[in-house]
Amino acid sequence: MRIGELSRKTGVPVPTIKYYVREGLLPPGELTSPNQAIYREGHERRLQLIRALLDVGGMKVAEVANVLRALDGPALPLHEVLGAAVDRLGATGREHGGTESAAAHAVVADLVSRRGWRTPESNPAAADLSKALAAMARVGHGAFVEVLSDYADAAELVARADLAYVNRRAGVDDMLESVVIGTVLGEAVFNALRRLAQVNVSAELDDTEDPPKRAPR
Amino acid sequence: MRIGELSRKTGVPVPTIKYYVREGLLPPGELTSPNQAIYREGHERRLQLIRALLDVGGMKVAEVANVLRALDGPALPLHEVLGAAVDRLGATGREHGGTESAAAHAVVADLVSRRGWRTPESNPAAADLSKALAAMARVGHGAFVEVLSDYADAAELVARADLAYVNRRAGVDDMLESVVIGTVLGEAVFNALRRLAQVNVSAELDDTEDPPKRAPR
Repeated sequence: MRIGELSRKTGVPVPTIKYYVREGLLPPGELTSPNQAIYREGHERRLQLIRALLDVGGMKVAEVANVLRALDGPALPLHEVLGAAVDRLGATGREHGGTESAAAHAVVADLVSRRGWRTPESNPAAADLSKALAAMARVGHGAFVEVLSDYADAAELVARADLAYVNRRAGVDDMLESVVIGTVLGEAVFNALRRLAQVNVSAELDDTEDPPKRAPR
Repeated sequence: MRIGELSRKTGVPVPTIKYYVREGLLPPGELTSPNQAIYREGHERRLQLIRALLDVGGMKVAEVANVLRALDGPALPLHEVLGAAVDRLGATGREHGGTESAAAHAVVADLVSRRGWRTPESNPAAADLSKALAAMARVGHGAFVEVLSDYADAAELVARADLAYVNRRAGVDDMLESVVIGTVLGEAVFNALRRLAQVNVSAELDDTEDPPKRAPR
C-alpha cells in the first residue's frame, strides 16, 4: 500500500509516519520508483504497536525505539527486553537517599525473600518499588507498607494471568512482542481498572455525613 | 527556615523551589525583610509531595498544579480530586475510533455492570480502559480480554486495601491528600510489584529449551 493508505488505516498522519521512519522506529517502505515506496501489513502492525506504546503506554519516542531495537535484535533474555520496556520509570529522577531510602530498600528485600520471587539484581522494578515507598514515607505515608502484602497478592494474581495469556499464545505469534505488549499495555489496563474499582471507595467516602476532613493550613 | 535549609532538607535545588513558587505549586515564604523569606514545615511537606508526584508518579508540572489546586480549593467530591490526579492518562492522545473502540467500550460497560461497580459517567478511567483494550486489539491482542476478569479481581483486592488504608488514617491527617497520594504513588508501587512478580514468568520462559520464538519479518 502507499503511505497515504497506511496513514488512513492507522490514523497516523503522513508526516508522523515519515518521522518514525527517520527515527528508526519503522522500517522504510520498499522503493518502487525514486519517489514512491510501498508499505506492507508488517508496517501497519508495527505502526499500531508504536502508537499503542506512545499513547496508551505513555512512553517517549526514544524509549519506544529502545524497546523495538530489543525486539528486533538478536535473541535477548526476556527480562532484558522487558527491562527495556519498563526502564522508563527507573530512569526518571535520581535516588534521593536518606533514611527513608534505606528503610524502603530493606522492606523490598524482605518482601522479595518472603515471597520467594526470583529476581535478578539488575531488575529495575525493585529499585522503582524502593523509590516509590521512600517517597511515600517522605510525605508521611510510611504506614503504607502495611498494605504491601495485599498489593503483592494482587500483583501475583496479575502476573499469573499474564503468564497464562502468554503461554496460550505461544506458537501463535511473536512471544517477545506479546510480553512487551502485555507489560506496557497491561499496566495501563490494570491502572484503569484499579481506578474504576476505587470509585466505590470514593462513593463510600462521599456517602458519609461529614465533608472530607482537610488538614489546617 | 531559610530557602537554603529547605533545599538541603528536601534535596530540591533552590532555583527549582523558586520555580515551583512562581508556578503556584508552592506558597511563597513569609517575608521577614524585603530580601528574606522564611519557610515552615508545611512548605517542606508540600515540596516532598510535589517531588513525589513528579518523580514517582510521573506527572507533569501542570498536572501537579491541577491536583494541588483541587486539594487546596473548596471541598470537592473525592472523585473529582481523584479525577484531577489521574486525568493525565485520559488527556494524552485522541480516541482512535473504529470497530476496536466500539468493541472495547462494550466490553468495559459489560464488566462494570457485572461487577456492580458504581461509577459516574464522567470517570475517565472507563475511557482509559476502553482505549487500552482497543489499542491491544489493534496490535492483534484482542484475546487479552480473556484475562480481564483476573485483572478485575486483582484491582478489587487493591482497591479494598486502599480503602482500609485511607479509613485507618481518617482523622489522622488530610484524607483527600491521602487518597491522592495513595492513587498516584500506589500506582507506581503496584506497577513495580507486578514487574517483580513477572520475573518468575520471565525466568520460567527462559528455562524452556527453545529460544523465544520470533515472528518472521
